[in-house]
Amino acid sequence: MLKIEFLGSGNAAGVPVWGCDCSACKAAQSDPSKRRRGASLAIHTDEGVTLVDAGLTDLAERFSFDSVKRILLTHFHMDHVQGLFHLRWSEQQRSIPVFRPDDPLGADDLYKHPGVFEFQPPFKAFDSVEWPGFRVVALPLIHSRETFGYLISNDCYCMAYLTDTAGLPPDTLSYLQRYPVDDLVLDCSEPPRESMPRNHNDLNAAFDLWRQSGASRLWLTHISHRLDCWLEHSAATLPEGVYIARDGMLFEIERGVETDNDT
Amino acid sequence: MLKIEFLGSGNAAGVPVWGCDCSACKAAQSDPSKRRRGASLAIHTDEGVTLVDAGLTDLAERFSFDSVKRILLTHFHMDHVQGLFHLRWSEQQRSIPVFRPDDPLGADDLYKHPGVFEFQPPFKAFDSVEWPGFRVVALPLIHSRETFGYLISNDCYCMAYLTDTAGLPPDTLSYLQRYPVDDLVLDCSEPPRESMPRNHNDLNAAFDLWRQSGASRLWLTHISHRLDCWLEHSAATLPEGVYIARDGMLFEIERGVETDNDT
Repeated sequence: MLKIEFLGSGNAAGVPVWGCDCSACKAAQSDPSKRRRGASLAIHTDEGVTLVDAGLTDLAERFSFDSVKRILLTHFHMDHVQGLFHLRWSEQQRSIPVFRPDDPLGADDLYKHPGVFEFQPPFKAFDSVEWPGFRVVALPLIHSRETFGYLISNDCYCMAYLTDTAGLPPDTLSYLQRYPVDDLVLDCSEPPRESMPRNHNDLNAAFDLWRQSGASRLWLTHISHRLDCWLEHSAATLPEGVYIARDGMLFEIERGVETDNDT
Repeated sequence: MLKIEFLGSGNAAGVPVWGCDCSACKAAQSDPSKRRRGASLAIHTDEGVTLVDAGLTDLAERFSFDSVKRILLTHFHMDHVQGLFHLRWSEQQRSIPVFRPDDPLGADDLYKHPGVFEFQPPFKAFDSVEWPGFRVVALPLIHSRETFGYLISNDCYCMAYLTDTAGLPPDTLSYLQRYPVDDLVLDCSEPPRESMPRNHNDLNAAFDLWRQSGASRLWLTHISHRLDCWLEHSAATLPEGVYIARDGMLFEIERGVETDNDT
């Protein structure tokens, strides 16, 4: 059994943005299925849950302590780690291993007071780990801090989960080209722009990278309210094979990819 | 109109603690009115809302951007500031002033990327500010970081909100003794202990400080699951004039103090 759940598909501001009355934010205020929280995944296997990033602050309500086997961090920006700050004070005997890029600062006092979390030696580029039900490869990305994406695969399926990034390092792109990637889940924070935004992809960059990667499908994630506004009028113009991530979306691997947009 | 709402009454771990099956945590899992989130207040006046600390991460859903006039931080521990991290990316023109103790580190990258927040020059000890409907005095506390409590008053009422602290500095105690404090809301993280815990009060210390302060009533806050367990059997032994804070509790000043424990 391998299920990949999208806990969040939004950028750091989320959708709705606080105080914003753009059409996307207004729609998200009245329809919870259109809300976007911090981009993150839960990988479910028979063993339990592996979290990819921990930006959501209700993880304690979503996942029992016993179910969470490990956490993979893409990087230490607050919208990707914020959920760890009260979880760490759990008083359970078992520690939860946290895998991460090499970022000596971490986030606030998380290294100093890790609580129940056990930070593992940092991944090096293209390090590979196998856990019950799936394997993971750490893929370097281009961001304002040391950041990894993760290739998540089993014998019949491969997802490249690449957020946050602005473009891709040549080594990461050529790694993807050698792999039969079913789903490229890619940072696409912004609608098409004249020039590339800092630290994140716009839609033009996301399309370019998808085509170069050779992945079967492209899923846009880390989405801002600006992209959601653009999509309201232009989603129909997206090329075949391009999809928009949603909070609560579930990929059930054995049965092919299904999506459930009800959060 | 002056209403003081207790948004949270818990310590950094909150109640229930993740993965804990003590009696207090089990009770809180099944009864939301027994949950405790990060200690914090919302002061409501005809002008709008003043937040005292921002540890809750659903502030965007609780308070409209327009309603929030300012934020008072007691200190920069994550359980007191965490809620600011996604609010900061609001794109509104008006900035929200944030008042604070003098802590050059702040929290993570909040000073570097304040977004919509405008950090004010730090309060000095016993600085006083008057806003429409109430006034505030910054009272030094004893904690692992620079921390202020706040005396919140209007012409007919005075609350001393003192969390987080282990004991009180002599100057703060003598300041309280000169004021007719109606409600002393005090850090009481732990049940009675043989020796004083680090950084927070146990119940013995809270009683001592209350008696020395001369305040009419004592409200325990910043409560851990350990204190909640102790209270299950011993709440009836609390002296007259001692009360236990609850999330959602509302003090309506003109009409005297009322409490509403339904969150």
